[in-house]
Parts: sequence; C-alpha cells; structure tokens
Amino acid sequence: MPNSSEIRALLFDVFGTVVDWRSGVARDAGQFLSRHAVPIDAFEFADAWRRQYAPAMEEIRSGRRQFVRLDVLHRENLVKVMTDYGVDVRSISTEELDELNHAWHRLDPWPDSVEGLLRLKRRFMIAPLSNGNIRLMMDMAKRAALPWDAILGAEVVRAYKPSPQVYVDTVEILGLKPAEVCMVAAHNGDLAAARQCGLKTAFVVRPVEHGPGQRSDLHAEQTWDFVAADMNDLATKLGCPT
Amino acid sequence: MPNSSEIRALLFDVFGTVVDWRSGVARDAGQFLSRHAVPIDAFEFADAWRRQYAPAMEEIRSGRRQFVRLDVLHRENLVKVMTDYGVDVRSISTEELDELNHAWHRLDPWPDSVEGLLRLKRRFMIAPLSNGNIRLMMDMAKRAALPWDAILGAEVVRAYKPSPQVYVDTVEILGLKPAEVCMVAAHNGDLAAARQCGLKTAFVVRPVEHGPGQRSDLHAEQTWDFVAADMNDLATKLGCPT
Repeated sequence: MPNSSEIRALLFDVFGTVVDWRSGVARDAGQFLSRHAVPIDAFEFADAWRRQYAPAMEEIRSGRRQFVRLDVLHRENLVKVMTDYGVDVRSISTEELDELNHAWHRLDPWPDSVEGLLRLKRRFMIAPLSNGNIRLMMDMAKRAALPWDAILGAEVVRAYKPSPQVYVDTVEILGLKPAEVCMVAAHNGDLAAARQCGLKTAFVVRPVEHGPGQRSDLHAEQTWDFVAADMNDLATKLGCPT
Repeated sequence: MPNSSEIRALLFDVFGTVVDWRSGVARDAGQFLSRHAVPIDAFEFADAWRRQYAPAMEEIRSGRRQFVRLDVLHRENLVKVMTDYGVDVRSISTEELDELNHAWHRLDPWPDSVEGLLRLKRRFMIAPLSNGNIRLMMDMAKRAALPWDAILGAEVVRAYKPSPQVYVDTVEILGLKPAEVCMVAAHNGDLAAARQCGLKTAFVVRPVEHGPGQRSDLHAEQTWDFVAADMNDLATKLGCPT
C-alpha cells in the first residue's frame, strides 16, 4: 500500500460508491408503480432506468449532443423506460414525473459512508466527482448529511466521466498536481480513467450495488493504490483516526 | 418586509459580506512586509491590493480577456502593487509570493457569520456566489467552518459579477425560478445586478469592511427585500429559529 502523505484531495464517485441508488430508486418507483397499478417489479424498473444512463451520456461524450445535466438525461430516460414497459406517459402529470425523476436526489448512503467521509474530511479535501449535477448532489448531501467540502463533477466541467477532461479539469480547479488527488470509486472503469490522467486511485468494493446477483466490479481489476472494504476502512488505510 | 416562504436558496457574496478580507489580508501582508523590512502599512497594502480587483475583473467582463480564476488575478495584482510600492519582486521567491497570495484563502468570518449560516442552512440551500474561485472558497470554508451546501460562483459559470450571466446561470444550475433565490450581500451594486435578473435581495450592512473610515455601502440604496444588521439578524428575519 503506497504512502498517502502526498494526497491532498479525495474525489468520490457517488452513485454506487457513496449511496445505494438501486434501493433508493426502487423505493420511490415502487410507490409510483403501485399508485398506477403497473405490474412491474420496482427493482427491475430501477435497473432498466439505470441501463439508459451510459448510452444517454455517450451521446454527449461522443460530441453528438451538447452537454445537458444529468437531471435532463434521467427525465428523458424515465419516459423511454415507461414507454418500453407500455405505460402511457401522457396520462401522468409532468409534476408526478418530475417528482419521480427526483428519486435520484433522495438516495440513502451506504451505512459506512457518512462516518467514513467525516473521518476523511478532517485530513483531506473531499468532494464528489460524479456525473450527477450540482443540484442533485446538493439535495442528496443535505438529506443524507454527506459532509462535502465542495460539489465538483460533470456539471462544473461540462463533460461526463470517463472523459479525461473531467479528471484533468477538476484537478486544475483544485490547483493541485494529479498525483495529489485520489479518485475513490466502486467501479474499475472510473479508476482506470482517473489513473490515465495521473490521479491516485482507491477502490471501495460495493458487492450489492446491482443487487444480490452482481457480477461486475466485485474485485480490483488493477493494482489500485488503495483497496478498501468500505469508507471506514478507506479512512483507516489513509491514516485517518476514528 | 416581504414573505420569505417562496425562497429556496440563498446565495452569498463572500468578501466583505461573510468574511473580513481587509483584516485577514493585512495580517498576512504585515508579516511579509516586516520580514522584508518594507515600510508600508499593512492595511494600506491590503487596500491597494484590493483596488486592483475590479479593474482586473473588468478585463474579463468586457471580453478583452478570457476567463481566468481569481487566484490568477490576485497573483498578478500582487506583483503590480509591490512594484508600485518599489519592492523588487524578483528578489522574492515564487513560493513566498504564492503563500502571500493565499492570504485570500485564510480570511476570518465576521463574528456572526458561522452561527447565522448554520441557522439559515436548516431552512435554505446556502452557497457562496463569490468572484472567488472554487479552491479559494473551499480552503476558506474548511478553515473557518463555513457550512456551505455547495460552492457556486464565478468559476462555475466562468464569468464575474456583476455580469448578469453569473446570476442567471447560477439560478439555472439550482433548477429554481429567480424569485426562489435570494442574493445576500453587503454591496448595493451586487444586489442591484441580482435584482435585475429577478432574484430576491438581502442587504447585510458591514460598516467596517473598508476600515473605520468607510463611506460606501453604509445603508440600503434601494428597497431591498430584506435588510439585516448581521447574518444572525438575517436568519431571524427569514424566520429561522435560533
């Protein structure tokens, strides 16, 4: 395990790494689906909604579409998924769709996240580097008491991970060298992109992000600088007292 | 006094409104000046440095220069001011100049700021809308325990107040209507620009921001939506319990 003394700032992936998006979205979707008597499993719906996430961002990463914030993509994807399931979206009010879309603002942290972040915050600058937009991250942080020092991420740099621009521009905003910044994520792909840009990397394993049958990201696929079982373990490995 | 029930987010000017830049800069400049035996009063030096602030930003507001963050402008202005005072800047190390430049990251809040912000945060989203850059605001907040929900401001929208773009784009990032956002500032000019963009306005009087002889911004020059003696008074006027 390398020395952490050079690290000044930690940047966190959020969906899956800090919060449990699947349970949170399924909770709100479940209420919606039963209200409208739609016979779809709430977790299946959450997974289907999430599957639209990568292709929607790819439109922007590829340059085929100008940057729009994630709230906009989530809203478009919601209509797509409902239509795929045969729901007549026109029969549902804009307000109700918007409200369901904000399920992503109301996700619960994993049980170790807040305590781990509080420990890490005493020694490092901590900020999300999520594809979620600023308002989404702010609502989530206020509701869940995530103690961020700033809200960084896709909307600040107007690009989506894993585009190198996201990591490079964020390091520049921090006024640090890439090696003074550590990306923390439960996703090997995110860490690989960060490492390509010279950042340090910390893998936090989240084996049930995608539910009980998860097959991806169950272990570190490269020799990341740090590998931790949860956020508290990461704090310990980075030398933060309890 | 209008009803505050529509307001969802408060945006704060920071230099002068939340923190006492003059004392903080004079403290660090004073140490520097005595170390180099430069016979200039530290407060005079702070004032001279600050006088370069508006014209430097005007280069960017006018479009004559591309956006650069305030740390860069402060650093250029520091060299200018020293040169004006006859200091041989080449005799001073880059590290020492950078360190002094970071005096702006180490400013103390006014005595009422932290308590007032903590009260306001329970009811509203709170964020700086400063011309200071993200890292500057983050360092300041960590040191002074300013409990921001996010760091907004010039660097996020890549424009300087009082350009309308700063207020308009920030309201858009918040996903709110202008009337749901209130600008809080000790400066009538900042509030006038925010009001032009449809935001609500709160004037907090800071009668010694510029020292004992201050002549500007001693009172509200328009009928702002709220006028407060300090941040605690503002919290009371916005209906936040102690």
